Amino acid sequence: MKKDNIRITEKNIDPEAYYNILYNRINEDLANAVSVEFPPNLYNPMRYALAARGKRFRPVLLIMACESVGGTFRDAYNASLAIEILHNFTLIHDDIMDDDNLRRGRTTVHKKWNNNIAILAGDGLIALAYRFLLRTKSRQIKRIIKIFSEAIIVICEGQSIDKDMESAASVSMNDYFDMIKRKTGVLVSISAELGGILGKGSEKEIEALSKFGFELGIAYQIQDDLLDIISEEIIIGKDLGSDLAQGKKTFPIIAFADCASKKDIKYLNETFLNGNADLESIRRVKKMLHDYGIVEKTQQEVNKHIDNANSYLHNTSHNHLLFLSEMIRNRKF
Amino acid sequence: MKKDNIRITEKNIDPEAYYNILYNRINEDLANAVSVEFPPNLYNPMRYALAARGKRFRPVLLIMACESVGGTFRDAYNASLAIEILHNFTLIHDDIMDDDNLRRGRTTVHKKWNNNIAILAGDGLIALAYRFLLRTKSRQIKRIIKIFSEAIIVICEGQSIDKDMESAASVSMNDYFDMIKRKTGVLVSISAELGGILGKGSEKEIEALSKFGFELGIAYQIQDDLLDIISEEIIIGKDLGSDLAQGKKTFPIIAFADCASKKDIKYLNETFLNGNADLESIRRVKKMLHDYGIVEKTQQEVNKHIDNANSYLHNTSHNHLLFLSEMIRNRKF
Repeated sequence: MKKDNIRITEKNIDPEAYYNILYNRINEDLANAVSVEFPPNLYNPMRYALAARGKRFRPVLLIMACESVGGTFRDAYNASLAIEILHNFTLIHDDIMDDDNLRRGRTTVHKKWNNNIAILAGDGLIALAYRFLLRTKSRQIKRIIKIFSEAIIVICEGQSIDKDMESAASVSMNDYFDMIKRKTGVLVSISAELGGILGKGSEKEIEALSKFGFELGIAYQIQDDLLDIISEEIIIGKDLGSDLAQGKKTFPIIAFADCASKKDIKYLNETFLNGNADLESIRRVKKMLHDYGIVEKTQQEVNKHIDNANSYLHNTSHNHLLFLSEMIRNRKF
Repeated sequence: MKKDNIRITEKNIDPEAYYNILYNRINEDLANAVSVEFPPNLYNPMRYALAARGKRFRPVLLIMACESVGGTFRDAYNASLAIEILHNFTLIHDDIMDDDNLRRGRTTVHKKWNNNIAILAGDGLIALAYRFLLRTKSRQIKRIIKIFSEAIIVICEGQSIDKDMESAASVSMNDYFDMIKRKTGVLVSISAELGGILGKGSEKEIEALSKFGFELGIAYQIQDDLLDIISEEIIIGKDLGSDLAQGKKTFPIIAFADCASKKDIKYLNETFLNGNADLESIRRVKKMLHDYGIVEKTQQEVNKHIDNANSYLHNTSHNHLLFLSEMIRNRKF
């Protein structure tokens, strides 16, 4: 890794410009995170996964959270890469389980190679994530590793619940929120929390950051659900309406089931539970979701959680975090 | 977990009796390691995997290594469970990749549930392993976690090489040893090494234990290869000749290819590379391996590595470790 040349504190730079600096730096270092070549069927897919240009929103959050309590980029950086690497492990394994074709606009690992190679690449990324986490210099390293490890179990719980929900006859809003808290909320939450710890924030600040991250994660997931419905494949870089086609019980679908006519619910169930969703059916369902006001309702739910998140930001040192949450609110991909 | 009631030091108990005490205690605690119930499709398979009665040889090694340098059972115990849980993660994911039906005499996780559930159960076990490791009280906890994490990457390398070898036209003895060092040697090696660290051994003692464990791991794997050929299914608790049937390039197979007639090598290749191995072909290959003296040669190789391992044991405080290595030498399952 090249020498730390980021010396900008958040007081003297525009948040968007800073995000872009961090984004480029993270991309560069993740693309080089796997230097070993042999065995190629382990390291090539790991490298491939890390080279995809995700939003890098979790590591940026960790860094900005650290700085918001007085820490530096350097304090946070290795842990931020660890979080993003861990996130990429979940993407590879989730894509196998969902048998998705596309991720971040590129062929998924298990489709480009095969399931076995993808299982192993995901496993390898977990260990790589710990390697980066362990480069962190902190007196609280044991606490940090504990938070990190416990988050992995919770993410597994979330994914397990998510898969079970696909075949469940009905899913309540409560069930849905229980699932996304674990699947998405916790990792975003600990990104902000670890930033707070690494920046040597007070316990009160760390707790506020953790809650901020949690609400942000919930908003992020619901926004994701919405984008699956309203975006075009070319923008979102994932399969078009892939959640729908797999019978995923997302926020919009559950909200729809709570208010639509029996006939329309029946249409939705028959189309998707049989796995028969073609492009035409997906379009029709999307139109129904618009007509029932579900798109608007979902956006309102996103807004609510962004507002909740922002309520934990109290002072001007949080300007960059505020920028992040507004970015999530308005994201189109 | 129940209160620590093992107060026996190795000076006053027969090694085999002590092994049995540890074995029962480990089994009991692993069967209770997963107390959470929800979501069942994550925790039931994790519990199922941990309840299988393996030999528990790695955790026992860790404990005995710790005691051999003056540490106590209590110093070593959580780390020993972590090692066994990590080992169980590798078994679940390897069984998916090999599509094996049986493990320790029971249906494999992915056959009892499905591939997705098994992927997730394995992931969950990695995190659970860290949870136990983090319960360890040691000033060297960062070093311990680093050794543990780096071992995971090396094990992934070993598994990747192993899978690639199945479809390789030819595999040399060098290739084979390179693979088993990573796939099996390293985890056994760090079991002894971590025991040494936790027992507060000198750096020289820790290094000797690490080398002892490494040679033991190599011996263990070659013995495993041999048992796959000479054992009956009912004893070994795995698929009969499953390595053979999958075209795995094990020690006996490579040794056979180095000395057999062209005709016999051709028979072996045609039988197994086509995936056509029936019970009759497997029996014939087994007979050939006997006739060429491969079984004897393989046992000699096991003996060589056990002797290497034992050469690192210098004093009477190593009596229990000596018992372990002789147990590996003579194991029949």
